[in-house]
Amino acid sequence: MLSVEEARARILAPLKPTPAEIVSLAAAFGRVSAEPISARRTQPPADVSAMDGFALRAIDGREGARLTVIGSAPAGHPFAGRVGPGETVRVFTGSIMPDGADAVLLQEDATDDGASVAVGETVASGRHIRRAGQDFAEGEPLIPAGKRLTARDIGLAAAANHPWIAVHRAPRVAILATGDEIALPGEIPPPGGIVSSNAHALEALVRAAGGEAILLPIVRDDVTATAEAVQAARGMDLLVTTGGASVGRYDLVQAGLEQLGFVLDFWKIAMRPGKPLMAGRVGEVPILGLPGNPVSAMVCAILFLLPALGRLAGQEGAAPANEEARLGAAVAANDARADHLRARLSRDGAGRLVATAFPRQDSSLMRLLAEADALILRPPHAPALPADAVVPVIRLDRLGI
Amino acid sequence: MLSVEEARARILAPLKPTPAEIVSLAAAFGRVSAEPISARRTQPPADVSAMDGFALRAIDGREGARLTVIGSAPAGHPFAGRVGPGETVRVFTGSIMPDGADAVLLQEDATDDGASVAVGETVASGRHIRRAGQDFAEGEPLIPAGKRLTARDIGLAAAANHPWIAVHRAPRVAILATGDEIALPGEIPPPGGIVSSNAHALEALVRAAGGEAILLPIVRDDVTATAEAVQAARGMDLLVTTGGASVGRYDLVQAGLEQLGFVLDFWKIAMRPGKPLMAGRVGEVPILGLPGNPVSAMVCAILFLLPALGRLAGQEGAAPANEEARLGAAVAANDARADHLRARLSRDGAGRLVATAFPRQDSSLMRLLAEADALILRPPHAPALPADAVVPVIRLDRLGI
Repeated sequence: MLSVEEARARILAPLKPTPAEIVSLAAAFGRVSAEPISARRTQPPADVSAMDGFALRAIDGREGARLTVIGSAPAGHPFAGRVGPGETVRVFTGSIMPDGADAVLLQEDATDDGASVAVGETVASGRHIRRAGQDFAEGEPLIPAGKRLTARDIGLAAAANHPWIAVHRAPRVAILATGDEIALPGEIPPPGGIVSSNAHALEALVRAAGGEAILLPIVRDDVTATAEAVQAARGMDLLVTTGGASVGRYDLVQAGLEQLGFVLDFWKIAMRPGKPLMAGRVGEVPILGLPGNPVSAMVCAILFLLPALGRLAGQEGAAPANEEARLGAAVAANDARADHLRARLSRDGAGRLVATAFPRQDSSLMRLLAEADALILRPPHAPALPADAVVPVIRLDRLGI
Repeated sequence: MLSVEEARARILAPLKPTPAEIVSLAAAFGRVSAEPISARRTQPPADVSAMDGFALRAIDGREGARLTVIGSAPAGHPFAGRVGPGETVRVFTGSIMPDGADAVLLQEDATDDGASVAVGETVASGRHIRRAGQDFAEGEPLIPAGKRLTARDIGLAAAANHPWIAVHRAPRVAILATGDEIALPGEIPPPGGIVSSNAHALEALVRAAGGEAILLPIVRDDVTATAEAVQAARGMDLLVTTGGASVGRYDLVQAGLEQLGFVLDFWKIAMRPGKPLMAGRVGEVPILGLPGNPVSAMVCAILFLLPALGRLAGQEGAAPANEEARLGAAVAANDARADHLRARLSRDGAGRLVATAFPRQDSSLMRLLAEADALILRPPHAPALPADAVVPVIRLDRLGI
């Protein structure tokens, strides 16, 4: 059986970033930049006052001096004249510094009678002035390609005068749930059947990762129906199946896929929950086959689908970030399969992160998965650990899923 | 001047959660539940096999025994008969346990010739069986009200057979940028003017927090135009203004608002960046007036607007979570204003989080804000600290903005 790391590398290897599309600035939030974003203007465009006050020649700004107010330069209305000896102009934060002035007398250091101003504190040349281009200059690269754009990036791109942004097209992911026993939410399941939940959780996960999800109708355990459903995934960036990867099922799905020229890179992964997992390709469409068990499906989606979506969206496709936490309770030694214990997080008296695995780790417990804050990572053959030992965790509360 | 904490409490106090609306399961992802979500069915609906194998009577399952295979129970097709002495039924993970059977012989412990099965390992009664209701029973509460629904919650709600979910309506936020000097991205700013960036960054932030943003046209520095623009915010859950809160500007915006019966709860806050901030209400619409400076606006949005959106969306509206980090470089003593130093995060040799403040902290530097991973929190009058001292940080890389 492959390790989690090997499996992830093999899933990611054939995936290519989606091509670029142009979207409006507002639509670029959360998308991945397809090109570097450079400054289309200089910011500030000229030397500006950093404070509310009075612009003057530093040489005139000795404590006790009195200057004549010759005008005002509110933001958007630069002063058209020139500040000469003994003169000053009212300025505000962001006001363009008037010609001739090289210093700013702070408002709180000025006594202003409207026509003239008394200097209460000697000024220094250049002080309280923001220089042209202090933030960025025209032509400078501001945001690299391959960055998921934050609200702050959107603000920066706006300030740099970009109404349009080239981003990677959102990865299009078809989701296919298979099985005779499942029904859509709100419908009446067959006798002994269950309600389909994986496809809906995966749709949310794909959207959270910036992808577009298409939910295909449920496919029954039938070769022809499976083949027809997979046809619907043509042109998608990824087909995710759920169910059909375990013994007795797999042959069926595989037979359906083989009618379409399925190239299999199948494996079982040395992990729990989630051993049965398959990867391959039909024509141009990569396929990731997740387990039918809901907890296994979601854990596999976190470990493999999230990186795959990242890679498709134009990023590296790194594994979910780990953090360190202290065990709230002892854990047993691990066997040959990497384990991912559903856990609650808390803080100890010293403010350190504590992860406590739920006593029940059965992979059928969706409710505990939903309540979990983290997965405690237990490598293959990891030794038993006492409470307070330090372990790596994946913080589910931070993944946005 | 108010402290950050007092200001936040005063901003949150009048805010009420939006009423509930009904959305489809898929649309409920990322929304806040307005009612507890309870199980509409029992999961598993009956005792089911936890493994692939053979269902039998435990009393028959001694090593070396041979049993007659009387049928198969693939998922979705329960076995209709009853398992009698010396009999067994093929089962798969999730198969309903046939009547009469109380144990599962694992597939890897069975030697199967199609008609009969040899027991390779003695079975135990009840082992490898998931009991009816082990995950949840009909009527049990699964997800509390006031929870932002994760992908895992969507899966759980699906499994519990909910096609529709009652969630708080997304808070509707009008964003109003003011100023004679600003132009929309892509337009040519007036002489000495700049491109509007706050409104676009705030729109993204509102969307990231689950709100719906409406960008009002830019309002020039004019009392009547301001009053008319604010009218457009009627029926919104919040009006956010940017600019117009500093000296010389404030009177203008306030005059515009007063024509509409503005109730002012104005203050300056003892913080940097971001001192000028106003809060109040026009009619039923709460107003949050952010500074015009882009870095100040975004820091204030993180400290005040995010909690406000949380409160409107049906949550508590807590301050952004702090984490602890070690200083990568010494910081100076702080004055009377709480400081929020833009910083980079890294890890030290021991894997601990390190926050290093940018040497330049001028609030005009949008580019450094976009590059920052965190804000180092410096309380009023905090002493100088050496490198390696532990400080609280807000992780911007974790806020999704």
